Amino acid sequence: MTRDEALFEFALRMGDTALILGHRISEWCGHAPVIEEDIALANIALDLIGQTQMWLGLAGEVEGRGRSADDLAYLRDAWDFRNLLIAERPNRDFGHTYMRQFLHDAYAVEMLGELTGSAEERVAAIAAKALKEAQYHLEKSSEIVIGLGDGTEESHARMQDALERLWPYTGEMFADDAVDETLAAESIAPKPSSLRPAWDARVNAVLGEATLTRPESGFAHLGGKTGRHTEHLGHLLAEMQWLQRAYPGATW
Amino acid sequence: MTRDEALFEFALRMGDTALILGHRISEWCGHAPVIEEDIALANIALDLIGQTQMWLGLAGEVEGRGRSADDLAYLRDAWDFRNLLIAERPNRDFGHTYMRQFLHDAYAVEMLGELTGSAEERVAAIAAKALKEAQYHLEKSSEIVIGLGDGTEESHARMQDALERLWPYTGEMFADDAVDETLAAESIAPKPSSLRPAWDARVNAVLGEATLTRPESGFAHLGGKTGRHTEHLGHLLAEMQWLQRAYPGATW
Repeated sequence: MTRDEALFEFALRMGDTALILGHRISEWCGHAPVIEEDIALANIALDLIGQTQMWLGLAGEVEGRGRSADDLAYLRDAWDFRNLLIAERPNRDFGHTYMRQFLHDAYAVEMLGELTGSAEERVAAIAAKALKEAQYHLEKSSEIVIGLGDGTEESHARMQDALERLWPYTGEMFADDAVDETLAAESIAPKPSSLRPAWDARVNAVLGEATLTRPESGFAHLGGKTGRHTEHLGHLLAEMQWLQRAYPGATW
Repeated sequence: MTRDEALFEFALRMGDTALILGHRISEWCGHAPVIEEDIALANIALDLIGQTQMWLGLAGEVEGRGRSADDLAYLRDAWDFRNLLIAERPNRDFGHTYMRQFLHDAYAVEMLGELTGSAEERVAAIAAKALKEAQYHLEKSSEIVIGLGDGTEESHARMQDALERLWPYTGEMFADDAVDETLAAESIAPKPSSLRPAWDARVNAVLGEATLTRPESGFAHLGGKTGRHTEHLGHLLAEMQWLQRAYPGATW
């Protein structure tokens, strides 16, 4: 695998995870429990879509076949997506959405933090911009996980349930493969496995404050990073890509 | 409005209602509570899609612009659909799905029964074939409405809730407009309003056996028959039309 092949895959992984998670969060628009949270979720979604544009823009540039970020977002089918599976999990309730967000944000902050020191300038520049947003997202999602976990009996039970449902999708964040080895050797990106201790520490601290019990299972669903997705992604893409599929080339 | 303009609209109304309801029911495939019910729902969906093919085939023929049933199903956007709004209501739980089905079937049996005597041969022929299926569907959906309505405390409460949610979507079945007037004058189709007494009698009898209380409100959501739909239709079409939109002209 060449450096550029690995960089293309990596940029898709980062961009697709931001895109799919951003789209999921955008599904809350107009449906959140109070207006302030509705707007907060919409802002997080917008940040993530903004990050998508940078990562998929880089992917298209590295690929060198003239595909834009929009082409990559709207004209690929499920098997060409490289997002982490956790990003495509359905929203379920508000607490579940924020548990997913917290588990992701705690990873994103570590990954982006490392990437700000990337030997590949374009990666470092994107990471520097995205890191600030991710830090804010993590602050917000931690607060909500703590507030609902250490809340009423019902909110606590729902958050524990969300944690157990999502836990098997966290291991994929830290699974290394040939793409990661290649980029680590070039000092372009960290090995994902190296991010685990910091993530563990953060997650343990927040779950502790939230009075939630960390699941013991180490089982991890894998596949998203190599294009093997759950049925949920196809449904999400059908909605997300509808406009460009039904009206090819449509512009504002 | 000419006879053929009205006939085109009417065939779309019949075909689109069957298509959208059939698609909704197909969403249960693999998810119903027991295998027998899963297969029963899949069979009802297939019957409805079969009826769609006949009605939209007729619509394309009457229109005379070379559009096939497939073209009409897969390449129109929401505003060109003419289905009753009740057909696009989400499935919710199993009982809600069958309450929607029962309210529809009780109407379909009356409508198709009248259409078997249509002065337009092609309409009479489609109705004769579809009526037998609709009678079976009504038998099945009546049984389930009675079984769950007159069942446990929980199933009774859910069926009453389903009835109240769906009730405002029943009035559209019996709302006459210029299309209906034109076809009634040509003895091609009955005025929808003329079907109401028979529907009322059937619905009252089944709800009575089901120990459910008929809502008193006469409020009716209208618009489906003229192309003004709820947000649910767009999401449904995004999934239903995905393949032909993403891979235009794809064939088996």
